[in-house]
Amino acid sequence: MKPIINIALEAGIPESAVDMYGKYKAKLDPDTIRQHVNRPDGKLVLVTAVNPTPAGEGKTLTTIGLSQSLNAIGVRAIAALREPSLGPCFGMKGGATGSGQAQIIPADEINLHFTGDLHAITSAHNLLAAMIDNHLYYGNALDIHPKKILWKRAADMNDRGLRSIVTGIGAGNGEVRESGYVITSASEVMAVLCLSENLADLKVRLSRIIIGYTYSGQPVTAADLNAVEAMTVLLRDAIKPNLVQTLEGTPVIIHGGPFANIAHGCSSVIGTRTALRLGDIAVTEAGFGAELGAEKFMNIKCRQTGLQPDAAVLVVTAKSLKYNGGIPVKELDREDVQSLQLGLVNLRRHLNNLQKSGVPVLVAINHFAGDTDAEIAAIVDECQRLGVPVELSKVWAEGSAGGAALARALVHLLESEVTQYQPLYADELPLTAKIEQVITGIYGGSGAVYSPEAKRTLTELQSNGFGHLPVCMAKTPYSFSDQSKWLGAPEGFMMNISRVSLSAGAGFIVVETGNTMTMPGLPRVPAAERMTLHPDGQIEGLV
Amino acid sequence: MKPIINIALEAGIPESAVDMYGKYKAKLDPDTIRQHVNRPDGKLVLVTAVNPTPAGEGKTLTTIGLSQSLNAIGVRAIAALREPSLGPCFGMKGGATGSGQAQIIPADEINLHFTGDLHAITSAHNLLAAMIDNHLYYGNALDIHPKKILWKRAADMNDRGLRSIVTGIGAGNGEVRESGYVITSASEVMAVLCLSENLADLKVRLSRIIIGYTYSGQPVTAADLNAVEAMTVLLRDAIKPNLVQTLEGTPVIIHGGPFANIAHGCSSVIGTRTALRLGDIAVTEAGFGAELGAEKFMNIKCRQTGLQPDAAVLVVTAKSLKYNGGIPVKELDREDVQSLQLGLVNLRRHLNNLQKSGVPVLVAINHFAGDTDAEIAAIVDECQRLGVPVELSKVWAEGSAGGAALARALVHLLESEVTQYQPLYADELPLTAKIEQVITGIYGGSGAVYSPEAKRTLTELQSNGFGHLPVCMAKTPYSFSDQSKWLGAPEGFMMNISRVSLSAGAGFIVVETGNTMTMPGLPRVPAAERMTLHPDGQIEGLV
Repeated sequence: MKPIINIALEAGIPESAVDMYGKYKAKLDPDTIRQHVNRPDGKLVLVTAVNPTPAGEGKTLTTIGLSQSLNAIGVRAIAALREPSLGPCFGMKGGATGSGQAQIIPADEINLHFTGDLHAITSAHNLLAAMIDNHLYYGNALDIHPKKILWKRAADMNDRGLRSIVTGIGAGNGEVRESGYVITSASEVMAVLCLSENLADLKVRLSRIIIGYTYSGQPVTAADLNAVEAMTVLLRDAIKPNLVQTLEGTPVIIHGGPFANIAHGCSSVIGTRTALRLGDIAVTEAGFGAELGAEKFMNIKCRQTGLQPDAAVLVVTAKSLKYNGGIPVKELDREDVQSLQLGLVNLRRHLNNLQKSGVPVLVAINHFAGDTDAEIAAIVDECQRLGVPVELSKVWAEGSAGGAALARALVHLLESEVTQYQPLYADELPLTAKIEQVITGIYGGSGAVYSPEAKRTLTELQSNGFGHLPVCMAKTPYSFSDQSKWLGAPEGFMMNISRVSLSAGAGFIVVETGNTMTMPGLPRVPAAERMTLHPDGQIEGLV
Repeated sequence: MKPIINIALEAGIPESAVDMYGKYKAKLDPDTIRQHVNRPDGKLVLVTAVNPTPAGEGKTLTTIGLSQSLNAIGVRAIAALREPSLGPCFGMKGGATGSGQAQIIPADEINLHFTGDLHAITSAHNLLAAMIDNHLYYGNALDIHPKKILWKRAADMNDRGLRSIVTGIGAGNGEVRESGYVITSASEVMAVLCLSENLADLKVRLSRIIIGYTYSGQPVTAADLNAVEAMTVLLRDAIKPNLVQTLEGTPVIIHGGPFANIAHGCSSVIGTRTALRLGDIAVTEAGFGAELGAEKFMNIKCRQTGLQPDAAVLVVTAKSLKYNGGIPVKELDREDVQSLQLGLVNLRRHLNNLQKSGVPVLVAINHFAGDTDAEIAAIVDECQRLGVPVELSKVWAEGSAGGAALARALVHLLESEVTQYQPLYADELPLTAKIEQVITGIYGGSGAVYSPEAKRTLTELQSNGFGHLPVCMAKTPYSFSDQSKWLGAPEGFMMNISRVSLSAGAGFIVVETGNTMTMPGLPRVPAAERMTLHPDGQIEGLV
């Protein structure tokens, strides 16, 4: 592992823009970088994937490996990734730092407290919560309806007992009311931070956060509670992107990690812009499969900021296609070209969607040890038939060497094709039309069935001046539909819209299909029970 | 502000022991320091005070100023202080970094997230909480009685709504039960961390934490839940002491900040030992007045670790003595030698207590602008009459120059007198006898009146093998008694013991007189509402 200051200096970052957090992590000052680094912004490449399956597709892995490979062939590339949440590491999840020869390090520190960003977000979220209850306690001058408070508290921990709670019990402890916790990644403060261009924009967005409604139905904002400056104080350092490195010393910016269902699932705008300023290519990713991650990347993050993807890399695996072709998880190790070919419908629809967005696409086949030549050939053949460039990626086993062909293909694509990116829908389109546009245009469904509550909320939001916002769909990531078992490329289904809510600070309308879990639980035997801290400081069982 | 690496190197700390957190904060590796710094440990000086009053006595200020002054007269001194809690900074409190010319910097960073220690403690605390509820959810193999769970959750925020809550509401969300939050400084994990000698000791202490009882009344520990290693993983960096500097560039170790009522109110043992290794004098402090802070410093921290104070500096102010002499807060600015002389009873009892402990004492009169010569003379005269060295300290106005006489007097005291320190009571003494020893020997009371519950708990603890532990008294800091209005030096009172509990991890018995608040609330207009973050990153309204 190289000292992070060396990584920074090699990446052209002025020393004055670097704040060390230990020897291998740093925070970067984006303003200083913008002032001192005079070069045109690089190209923006989005890594996305087919629908996720239990076998794992390796989207983060490919992002890391591709960045390494680009550097190995002489292209200055920087990866811009999401920041892991601490809580899930003690449950089931194994961190979010890649694996094999395509890893980000120091993985343990990144997966734990890292540079404190999530703790800062938790604090800012909970300060607002405390100020709400304090306002009720001291006379409720704003006339907030205690049963119409939407703002919960946040914790970066998997704790199902906190999903639904009653607070304020006992004399002198304020208003007794129902509330609950979300995990920090699901906090609107996280989404706000990730979409903010700078501190001033952060304040504007925090100001807009609606915490609930008055007795007469008027929205109450964080600004109304005078909480915005203090929340920004808590986020002063968290808004700065973090620099780490891959196993091969490729610079990686990790910053922000919002949920990919009730939020947009992309790392921070500031992180992306910093990577673009420093690299000839900035490689970033978005949560879940392309119908969720890429759609939100383009229709929320790019729409709000003017960023646009110059190319997309769609990650696919033989296993994922076999799974989408009907093979159960336990039998995915067996060669089955026929099932794989059935599963290609999933790949085709994602490709078609990306092409409709006007973004040049490259398919990356993330290679697993058991994949057979016939399976790989079937994927390659299909891509060639469709006229889409495709390369095998062996970055897990071989690091940059295993992704050299992919990297060259990407460079070729960027040189030969210019993005025609355009968002899926116009701001002016009514909210229901936007929802239906996503369902019919991306998911392959026929339309939406709204719950009475969802219908009412959409009407209210439309008439209250929020109709111009993009929609943020929360649905199962395992299917194009809202039924996790409908694999492949289901068609003709109606999508059930259960609930609609406004993230006014982040600037999108959350559209839920079914119940979205915003506070995970621990499994029967949590990963926490299998961890060991050795006397030399090494952690066993974390990643 | 000097780069912290320079401060570290000047203090003799090897570069390999320093992990930067930005340019002006660092974490130190105590093991590396112990290996590389070969010099005898310095002298340990405890700064304590008369009973606190609303006017403020300046104990932290004096600790900082005295350290500066010692360095100014050529003595290598290091201050070892408590780490502020973030929550209260958004309520009423103005941080814990001194003021005037005796400040620790960067005050804003220290008072906010600092190096993340409190966040790590919060996480470790809440992981254990989540594992308890998860254990109940998955069948409760340990047979834990849900209504006998003592372990609450923790947050570093003033939030009265969280004092008493009901968790686990709703299908699939686990056991519905009463619980609550404590502020992080009141977490037993904080006390444990501060009393631990190293990672191995930390694990032993965490293992002992009793989270509640089974249906058959057996204690259930963090070890029973397999939570200890994962908690230690979360605390891996938090156990390392932090280095900052004063306005004059004096090195200051800030590490740990447990409550001074239900815990022992001292900065970490590891921080103290590091300061002793690096300095000829380590200047530290303890919470509240000497009857709480110094008593716990000696009978808990020193007892458990073998540390012993070579001298004590007792901070007094003219205002505090006038207040103890019966003058109301608003009239403290007026000269009143007669009332001050009445208030000297408070000083005398503290001096007497410290002398009984065998520790050489020096009185520091912390000077306020409005103090008159006659008032100062009255204090000096009394000390001289008692044969106790006394010096005026003007470190607030003048920095090290204002504390030079105090520093010289301290050096003289250390050279001329050898500590005869001995703890107030023996480990073998029964718990009730220990409590009564503190009440009669330190507080000036006549004895204890136990609530039936307290009596029962003491009997149980004594017969369950916890009788050897020291007692940690939780009482009002404003009086020697349990009545905050009984100023001066009340005598002959009986102390009401309302509740007794075991902090098995920390290794003491908490003895409460009245209700102890472990989760503060925000005031009517919280400091948060008056804060501003300026575009240059400067924070207004935080300290």
